Amino acid sequence: MFKKILVANRGEIALRVIRACKELDIQTVAVFSEADRDALHVKMADESVLIGPASSLKSYLNVSNIIKAAEQTGADAIHPGYGFLSENPGFARICESSGITFIGPSPEAIEIMGDKAKARQKMIEAGVPAVPGSQAVIMDEEMAAALGEEIGYPVLIKASAGGGGRGMRIARNAVELAHAVQNAQKEAQMFFGNPEIYLERYMETVRHIEFQILADKQGNIVYLGERDCSLQRRNQKLLEEAPASALTQELRAEMGLAAVKAAKSVAYSSAGTVEFLLDKNGKFYFIEMNTRIQVEHPVTELVTGIDLVKEQIRIAAGKSLSFKQEDIRISGWAIECRINAENTEKNFMPSPGTIEIYREPQGAGVRVDSTGCEGYCISPYYDSMIGKLIVWGANRQEAIQRLERALNEFEIEGVPTTIPFHLKVITNPVYIRGEVYTDFIERRM
Amino acid sequence: MFKKILVANRGEIALRVIRACKELDIQTVAVFSEADRDALHVKMADESVLIGPASSLKSYLNVSNIIKAAEQTGADAIHPGYGFLSENPGFARICESSGITFIGPSPEAIEIMGDKAKARQKMIEAGVPAVPGSQAVIMDEEMAAALGEEIGYPVLIKASAGGGGRGMRIARNAVELAHAVQNAQKEAQMFFGNPEIYLERYMETVRHIEFQILADKQGNIVYLGERDCSLQRRNQKLLEEAPASALTQELRAEMGLAAVKAAKSVAYSSAGTVEFLLDKNGKFYFIEMNTRIQVEHPVTELVTGIDLVKEQIRIAAGKSLSFKQEDIRISGWAIECRINAENTEKNFMPSPGTIEIYREPQGAGVRVDSTGCEGYCISPYYDSMIGKLIVWGANRQEAIQRLERALNEFEIEGVPTTIPFHLKVITNPVYIRGEVYTDFIERRM
Repeated sequence: MFKKILVANRGEIALRVIRACKELDIQTVAVFSEADRDALHVKMADESVLIGPASSLKSYLNVSNIIKAAEQTGADAIHPGYGFLSENPGFARICESSGITFIGPSPEAIEIMGDKAKARQKMIEAGVPAVPGSQAVIMDEEMAAALGEEIGYPVLIKASAGGGGRGMRIARNAVELAHAVQNAQKEAQMFFGNPEIYLERYMETVRHIEFQILADKQGNIVYLGERDCSLQRRNQKLLEEAPASALTQELRAEMGLAAVKAAKSVAYSSAGTVEFLLDKNGKFYFIEMNTRIQVEHPVTELVTGIDLVKEQIRIAAGKSLSFKQEDIRISGWAIECRINAENTEKNFMPSPGTIEIYREPQGAGVRVDSTGCEGYCISPYYDSMIGKLIVWGANRQEAIQRLERALNEFEIEGVPTTIPFHLKVITNPVYIRGEVYTDFIERRM
Repeated sequence: MFKKILVANRGEIALRVIRACKELDIQTVAVFSEADRDALHVKMADESVLIGPASSLKSYLNVSNIIKAAEQTGADAIHPGYGFLSENPGFARICESSGITFIGPSPEAIEIMGDKAKARQKMIEAGVPAVPGSQAVIMDEEMAAALGEEIGYPVLIKASAGGGGRGMRIARNAVELAHAVQNAQKEAQMFFGNPEIYLERYMETVRHIEFQILADKQGNIVYLGERDCSLQRRNQKLLEEAPASALTQELRAEMGLAAVKAAKSVAYSSAGTVEFLLDKNGKFYFIEMNTRIQVEHPVTELVTGIDLVKEQIRIAAGKSLSFKQEDIRISGWAIECRINAENTEKNFMPSPGTIEIYREPQGAGVRVDSTGCEGYCISPYYDSMIGKLIVWGANRQEAIQRLERALNEFEIEGVPTTIPFHLKVITNPVYIRGEVYTDFIERRM
């Protein structure tokens, strides 16, 4: 097992990883920017290293300073968390060549799944159903027009290097598509350093269902059930739950096996998520695979009892999975709300500032993963997440009742938060009936 | 279902009950003493009523003021929590005659189980094995001497009206017994208002194993597995876990059925706990039944997924249990530590005072039920509990690792706490091996 792990991240996920290390009796190294000198992850780690100024580019994305910090402190592995360098194959390679284990899949797997157009092709070849779309990268408007005709409108224009909902545009007809192609290419170049775009059928009234998988280096792969993350605003997830009420046992097994197939096709190891769209007829379509631990991983932990971050660490250390597919049981229901410092009345504008009053909910079935406390300053340099509230109930009804109780109990003053918005969502009869599609917020809120 | 429940308690258990009510959409009334004006249970309830000065006798034990508060606010039920009036059959009767539902068993069941000597007799009649002891109340030294001879030394002198480990003395020979009888009678009169005492064999090297039961008013009774509460100091529990590593499936079923039999013999309804001593040969002996929710109930909630307080409320409202014995599954391992403001170096002396720094542990598998916060004052008028830390793990090893992590993460400054003591206990190899008997603290710490 590793002796010392450097956590190349900040915020709640850094705490999450440090806690897992402590439970495994592994020393931890925090890295921090100048803006995070007093951050909780710095206090909680055994050691800490300043890696640059506030700007992410110069600190949490600063590969050479992070590698240097690992070498200085003698860390034998790096956990990248989510975001930042977590899906950067170059970083994974540099770790490898520096003799430091990258806690995640191989650089090759990250690379294939990171190129969304290539990943799509790979999945089709592996027999995993994907959203109808272009087999190749779009070169120009003419090619786009021909493909638009073939796929059928509306179409989604996606950046190959995008993902996580970023860099997407909808075109509802040929005119919109022609208009969008050049801009999309420019934007893709600007945001992702790669101008390649591709087309997919834009599916409305669909659910976003993703499967958590765990794969070891010995080739064992299991799926840990699904998460329903349909509740999104502009393709950004706000609330996630497990299991998904739309799935039958048969469909769960079918999608789970497709997720395992997807992972197998890239010789995946570590924790990963295979994302699908599910239409009203029970047909599902691969959209992308996330090659990291996800923000919403705790809902899966609560219904399976499996600690995903510890499993990532064990797998990276070369251990085989200690359980088989038939050992995994889904029990009860879990829901997660992202508690962000955002003004939901003003277009979810991030609202950095200092928390004046802070009290977390407690009690039966409540888990909070958060960096919040009185005096905590949400920095304008990073994302606006304060933390996550995750509840477990014996069934969906109890989980929703508990979530409502816990959201009401959560006291945060000093910055606006997404708490009132979540309360509106989960008391909406459409949500309570479980009839949430990806357009829920646009249509119902 | 009830419209409004008055919670006749304070501290963490009052919060626990209020949270359950909120999840069931039931209004809540808090009662409070003058010392608890700013207490969290007062803030969290929908309404609150001052019931007297700081002294428990004049406030939380003040039956007439509590009934008045219920009548004034229109509460249709009272939840007594634990301690205070929770096992007072007179209070349960007054509730009944005032047309207010007492959330607990019948006054008759409380009464029988409250008289520890009678309860013992009742159990023997019902075929539940009890610790060898006196069939009748001890009248004088002569009778005690004869019985001491019959039972065999060491013997335990217990107050009929005692319970929960209070009012007990050990006599290791006839001289000690003769000496103890009069004092024990006097003490029993002084503390419990009843001089009756009885004798039991004093069993050393035993485990304290208790079974949680739930019984509805329709006569359905189930057991929800056991808790190992062997870790005690002077018969006061400090750390509890579920399941108990000493039990085989067969023994669990046998003891569970004995617990159900015990409950049946007094036509029990509500949540209750049947306590046994378990010797090294796998023989078990009834010691007492607690006719209330217990401090350590969360460990059972974490391994069964059943919310015991909500079940109490549903049962009191006349609903039948929604599950059968075969539906109850024990999953993983849970451990609870009582976090008290006590100086463990100075004989666990309660150390009231104000908390200056307070930060609870968080994350995977951690539950905190607590009234603590910065500025919170532990009052000398009530018990010294700040809260409870309960962890869940996939197995005992993970639960212990998580507990250690969480105890280390728990920051409380301003008052001494039991946290350092708990850390010593759970890192002790004897505890880790699961070889804890009721004399563990005396012998090992």
